[in-house]
Formats: sequence, structure tokens, C-alpha cells
Amino acid sequence: MAAVEGGVPTRIMVAVNESTIKGYPHASISSMGAFDWTLKKIIRSNTSGFKILLIHVQVPDEDGFDDMDSIFASPEDFKRMKHRDKIRGLHLLEYFVHKCHEIGVACEAWVKKGDPKEVICFGKRVQPDFIVVGSRGLNPFQKVFVGTVSEFCIKHADCPVIAIKRSTAQTPQDPVDD
Amino acid sequence: MAAVEGGVPTRIMVAVNESTIKGYPHASISSMGAFDWTLKKIIRSNTSGFKILLIHVQVPDEDGFDDMDSIFASPEDFKRMKHRDKIRGLHLLEYFVHKCHEIGVACEAWVKKGDPKEVICFGKRVQPDFIVVGSRGLNPFQKVFVGTVSEFCIKHADCPVIAIKRSTAQTPQDPVDD
Repeated sequence: MAAVEGGVPTRIMVAVNESTIKGYPHASISSMGAFDWTLKKIIRSNTSGFKILLIHVQVPDEDGFDDMDSIFASPEDFKRMKHRDKIRGLHLLEYFVHKCHEIGVACEAWVKKGDPKEVICFGKRVQPDFIVVGSRGLNPFQKVFVGTVSEFCIKHADCPVIAIKRSTAQTPQDPVDD
Repeated sequence: MAAVEGGVPTRIMVAVNESTIKGYPHASISSMGAFDWTLKKIIRSNTSGFKILLIHVQVPDEDGFDDMDSIFASPEDFKRMKHRDKIRGLHLLEYFVHKCHEIGVACEAWVKKGDPKEVICFGKRVQPDFIVVGSRGLNPFQKVFVGTVSEFCIKHADCPVIAIKRSTAQTPQDPVDD
């Protein structure tokens, strides 16, 4: 007798974000790590037993540095900027969706605008069985300045959350980078 | 192409403890929940892809209430008590080991004496891919008085930890009970 034969696939929500080093459309090191870990350690060969729900929350650039070279002469420009950001988000997700298709595991993907903590609200809507989120594995001192999305998720999600720490070998010179 | 065909099974360490309501050899509500969740949501039908490492840490009774009816006249009595506790631990694990055999997933089980936080040290030794631990889902006020093992594990384990909250429907009248 197996634990579960067939039945509804386990819904795993994987939260991914962009690289602070390479920028769009590259995913962060910890996102890639969390996604790869999910495939290797959880899904394994049982691709029909799972469904991956990919969520990328785009953070609006608060200080506007990203848009220093942009000229905003009309509302149309803002619209174009928003469209560009959306495209970028889709590119970021493309890697993950492509990989899911390649290995044959069902997936859905969303881009949301807002605070990374939006992941939680989104989780309430799509109701995953659990959430996988990458973590930079910062020490308490480093955390003071940057905050951690993974810890917020663990505290506030309605479902179980598993944080996958970035390996030491993959940590950039500045560990806040990802 | 599957994510992982064959290869070394994913090692899941599941920490279980005894019921504060029913006592030995009954497992706590949250332990049972964490174990069942692992079978249903992670292992599913892929029983050859996983190995379950069961750990039960027996907490020595600090205030001695459990032993109020016991007479300790010789060092031999203490030895007998320790033996009895060990037997109890084995009974507690029996349910889980039996279930693993029933569904055909490989498992190993250990009883340790000490602080529940010993789970962490033990994790360092057996090196699981991740740890599953039940949680009573206490609110911050309730936590002040009893402490939570799951949060300690999340903070200090070398590997990812997933805490499975007890469902509201299963919460006893006193939520500190389990």
C-alpha cells in the first residue's frame, strides 16, 4: 500500500525573485536554489504527484534609481514602464516554467506588483499545501538592515513554509546580494 | 525527463513526542499530524524515493511528578526506571515504524534522552535533507510560558525545517496540551 496513490497533486508554491547582481531577467541565487531543491528532494521522479505554483512579486523601485535614465513626459511613459516591468517579470518566470515543462511537472505562474510579503496574501488565495522560499541565510546583524522575506512568510503564512538557505559556496562577496 | 530518477532517497527526519494528554505510548497530536502530512503531501506514492528518520527525544521529568508513586531504594530502582522510560519510547515509535512498513517506505528510529532541542544535535549527526516537526501553533502569549521546539529547530538546524501546525479542529481545550 502506498501513502497516496493518484489523487489530487500536492500544490507547492515557490516564491522567486530577481537577482540583485545580474538584474532582470536573471533569478536570484536563493530562488534558483529553492526551486532546484524542490525538484531534487521533493518531486524527484514523481512528476504527476505535484503541481508547482510560481509567484514572482515585483517590488516597485522606491528610490527611483532604476528609472534615472527614463523620461516621463506623459502618462503613456508610465504605462510603458509598467509594461516593461511586467515583461521582465515574465522573463524571470520563463526559466522556471520552461524547466517545469522539461521535467513534466504541471505548473502555473503569476507576476504580482508590491511588497515581497504579498506572497502571503497570494498564498491565501491559491491555497498551496506548502510554500518553498529561498533564503540568503543572513546573520542577525545583516538582517537588521535588509529584513527577510522567508522569516515573514514562516510567521504569517496559513500553510507550512520551508526556507531553503543559500549554500555558503554560492554566497556572493556581499551576502545581502543574491 | 524526470527531476530525479532513482538515486539516493531523500532523507526526511520526523521528530515525534508523546501526548501530554494520554501519556505514553501515545504520540502527541502534532507529531501524528506532521507524520501523516509527510506521507500524504511529500512521499505520496513514491515510497522508494524517501527514507524516514524518526527521532523521539525523551524529556527527563524535572519536577518528578511522574515518579511520585515510585520508590527508589537502590541504584537498581533508578536503572529500572530508566529502562521503563526507554521501553515507553520504543512503544511510541512503534506506531510510526509500523506505519512506514505498512506503506513500504524505508525508516530508521531512535530514542534519545534530554532536551527536545537535542533534535538539532541529532540532525547534525544523521544529516537529513530536511526535518519535519509538528507545532501546536501557539500564539505569542501562550509561547511565553511553554517555549516551542519547532521555532528553535527552524532557527538552529543545519538543514531546512518545515513545521506542520496542528489543525484548529484538533486543538485540545488547553492549546498547550498536545
